[in-house]
Amino acid sequence: MAAEIVNPRSDSTGADAGSDGVSGSTDEGFFDPAFALHRGGKMAVQATVPVRDKDDLSLAYTPGVAKVCSAIAEHPELVHDYTWKSQVVAVVTDGTAVLGLGDIGPEASLPVMEGKAILFKQFGGVDAVPIALATTDTDEIVDTVVRLAPSFGGVNLEDISAPRCFEIEARLKERLDIPVFHDDQHGTAVVTLAALRNAAKLTDRALGQLRAVISGAGAAGVAIAKILIEAGIGDVAVCDRKGIVSADRGDLTDVKRELAGFTNKAKLTGSLEDALDGADVFIGVSGGTVPEAAVAKMAKNSFVFAMANPTPEIHPDVAHKYAAVVATGRSDYPNQINNVLAFPGIFAGAMQVRASQITEGMKLAAAEALAAVVADELSADKVIPSPFDERVAPAVTAAVAAAARAEGVARR
Amino acid sequence: MAAEIVNPRSDSTGADAGSDGVSGSTDEGFFDPAFALHRGGKMAVQATVPVRDKDDLSLAYTPGVAKVCSAIAEHPELVHDYTWKSQVVAVVTDGTAVLGLGDIGPEASLPVMEGKAILFKQFGGVDAVPIALATTDTDEIVDTVVRLAPSFGGVNLEDISAPRCFEIEARLKERLDIPVFHDDQHGTAVVTLAALRNAAKLTDRALGQLRAVISGAGAAGVAIAKILIEAGIGDVAVCDRKGIVSADRGDLTDVKRELAGFTNKAKLTGSLEDALDGADVFIGVSGGTVPEAAVAKMAKNSFVFAMANPTPEIHPDVAHKYAAVVATGRSDYPNQINNVLAFPGIFAGAMQVRASQITEGMKLAAAEALAAVVADELSADKVIPSPFDERVAPAVTAAVAAAARAEGVARR
Repeated sequence: MAAEIVNPRSDSTGADAGSDGVSGSTDEGFFDPAFALHRGGKMAVQATVPVRDKDDLSLAYTPGVAKVCSAIAEHPELVHDYTWKSQVVAVVTDGTAVLGLGDIGPEASLPVMEGKAILFKQFGGVDAVPIALATTDTDEIVDTVVRLAPSFGGVNLEDISAPRCFEIEARLKERLDIPVFHDDQHGTAVVTLAALRNAAKLTDRALGQLRAVISGAGAAGVAIAKILIEAGIGDVAVCDRKGIVSADRGDLTDVKRELAGFTNKAKLTGSLEDALDGADVFIGVSGGTVPEAAVAKMAKNSFVFAMANPTPEIHPDVAHKYAAVVATGRSDYPNQINNVLAFPGIFAGAMQVRASQITEGMKLAAAEALAAVVADELSADKVIPSPFDERVAPAVTAAVAAAARAEGVARR
Repeated sequence: MAAEIVNPRSDSTGADAGSDGVSGSTDEGFFDPAFALHRGGKMAVQATVPVRDKDDLSLAYTPGVAKVCSAIAEHPELVHDYTWKSQVVAVVTDGTAVLGLGDIGPEASLPVMEGKAILFKQFGGVDAVPIALATTDTDEIVDTVVRLAPSFGGVNLEDISAPRCFEIEARLKERLDIPVFHDDQHGTAVVTLAALRNAAKLTDRALGQLRAVISGAGAAGVAIAKILIEAGIGDVAVCDRKGIVSADRGDLTDVKRELAGFTNKAKLTGSLEDALDGADVFIGVSGGTVPEAAVAKMAKNSFVFAMANPTPEIHPDVAHKYAAVVATGRSDYPNQINNVLAFPGIFAGAMQVRASQITEGMKLAAAEALAAVVADELSADKVIPSPFDERVAPAVTAAVAAAARAEGVARR
C-alpha cells in the first residue's frame, strides 16, 4: 500500500498548524502508511439478512418486524434471541488515557477504538461499536453508559484514566446486568497471570513461592496485583513513582490505600530497587525505567515482564542476562503480553451464556485456559501463545463460559 | 425460510407468560417467518482493513494507530478522514412511539432500529448503529446524544413520541455540529412533498393553487405542514382528534399553538370533515379513519394520501372513486409513501459534504430530486418512485449535497 500525504491546510476550517514546524511530529506521520490504511476508517456495518425486494423489506422491516417487537415487549428476555444485542459490545472511552498519548480527547481516540472493535470481531467473532464520549465527568460517563446499555450485550471500557476508571467500572457493574470490563485493567491482568503461570511451571515453582514487584499503580498495576493475589501469589508489592505502596505512607489515594491493605505482606518500604532486591518477578506497567543493577539483585530464576510500550522498562537483552523468563508488550520480541489474547474470548464466552457480569472466577479461568494453550510448547521464549494462535480465542471462550455457569452468573 | 417456534418458557428468567393464552398475540407470532429471520439480529460489524498478521496489527492498532491519533489531536478535522465517523449515523430512540405499537421501551424497539440501520446501509451506503436509550427524559436524551456525538457523523432520531421529539431535535440541532434529523417528521414530509409535487404536475396545477388538509398533528403531521408551506402550498389545515387546529382553540399544546400560527389561513373551524369540504389534498398520518362521504365532498381532481399503516384512513379502492391520485403507506398499493425513499440519500448527501446540519433547503431539494426521478413515467399510479428504484438514492444524495453547499453548511 502506497504511503499517503495529508495536507491539513486543505481543510476549510483553516487550522493554523502545517508544515511550518509547529506540528513536526504530525508532519512526519503524514508520510506513514498508517494514514493510507486509516483513510475512511477501519470498519463498517453490514446487513446479515437480505433487503433486496418488497418481501424482504416486509419481514425485516414493517410490517413483519412489529411482531418481533411485540414479542420482546411481552417477554423482554427475547431481545437476546431476536436482535444483535447479545453479540455487540460498546467500546467506551472518554479519550483521557489513550495508548501512551494521554488525554487526547474523544475524537482523537477513535482510531484506537475502531482498532479495538475490529480486534473484537477478528479474534472473538464479537461485534463492537466505538463510543467515544464528550465528557470526562465520572457521573456523566456512568449515567450515559447506563442509558446506552439496552442496545448492547457488553461494555468494554477503554483508555479511561485512573483513578476514575476504577469508580466508573465499579458503579457500572453495580447498575448493569451485562458484562462490564475495563480491558486496560483486567485484560492486562489476565494475560500477565497466564504468562506468570507458565513461567512458574517452566521453573518448577508454585505461584505461592513467588514474590512479585509491580512497577506502576495505575489501572493495569492495580488489576494485576489483585489477580495475582486471587491466584495465590506468595507476596506482591506495588510501586508508584514515590516507591513501594505501603500503609505507612501519608500520600496515598483511596485506591492505593486499599492496595496497601492487601499487598506487601512483607511490609517493605523504600524504592522500586529496594523492592526488587531478592524478588522473583518484576512486572513493569509504568512506562518508567529499571536500572540493570536492580534486575541483577533479583532472585535466581527471576521473571522480568517489562511491558511498557514502545520502550520496555529494561531492554529485553539486558534482562536476559539475569532472568529466566523475559516478556514484553512488543510484537518483535518473544512472549508478547498482548491484551488481544484475552478480551475477545472473555467477552465471547460471557456473551455466549448471557452472563450478567464478568466475575473474578471467569478472569482466573481465562488466564488458566490461555496458559494451557501453550501446553508442551512451553519454553523460556514461549510462556504465552502468539496473538495469532487460532486456538486461543476458542479456549478462552469455552473456559469463560464454563466459569460463568459454575459461578451462577450465566443466563442460559 | 421455515417458520420457527419460540418457547419463552425455555428462558431461565422464568417469565410467567407462555402458551397459556395470556400472551395470545405473541404466541401467534412465534410461528411467523419474521422470527426466523430475526434470530441473532439483522446486522454485524466488519473490518474494512486486514488484521491477519503482526504487520497488519502494527498498522491498524499499536504502534501505527498512535500516529493517526496524534494527527487528529493536533488537527481535529482529520477525524473525518481517518475514522468511520463521517460515514456512521446513530439511530437513536427511546422506544416511546415504535411503529403503531406505542411506548414499548428501548429493548423492544431494537428490531426496528436494526431494520433502520440496514436500510441506511442498503439504500444509502451509510453505516448506522442502533442506540436505544434507557430514558424518556428530554434533558437526559439530549445530554446523552451530545456526549455520544464525537463517535458519529449524524444522528437519526427515530420513534420518539411527540411533543418531546420536537424539543429534543431542536435542542440537539443547537448543540451539535453534525446533521440531526427526526425521520418520522422530516423523512415523511420530504416523501409526501415529492408525491404532492408530481400529483400537482400530473393534474397541471401549481402547489399554490392547492388547499391541503392533514389529519394528525403529531411528528409527521407537523413536519408535513411546515414543508408544504415552505414549498408554497396555497393553504393547509391540520386536524387533531378534536378537529381543525385553529388559534381560537383553548386546548392547544405549544407545538399546536405554533402550528395554528402558520397554517389555516382560511381560518377554518370545526371537524376534519368540515376541513375536507372542497379541499384538494387529504394527507392522513393519524391512524384514524375518514368516512367516504367526507372524501366525496373534496374538490375535483383531489389527492388522497392515506398513509396510516397497516390500515389506511380510507381504503384506496374507495378513495379512487373520487380522487385523481391515491397514495398510501403500503407496499401492496401503487404510490407508497415510504421514508426509505428519503433518509438514506439525505444522510448520504449531508455526510458526503460534512454538512453541519440538515437545513430546510436541503429537505426541499431532496423532495424535488425524488419527484424528478419519476420524470416521464409520471401517472396517477406513479407519482413517487418505488423504494427499489436504484436511481433514487443517488439523485437525493447529489441534490442534498449540492443544497448543503449552496446554503453554506457544507464543510468540504
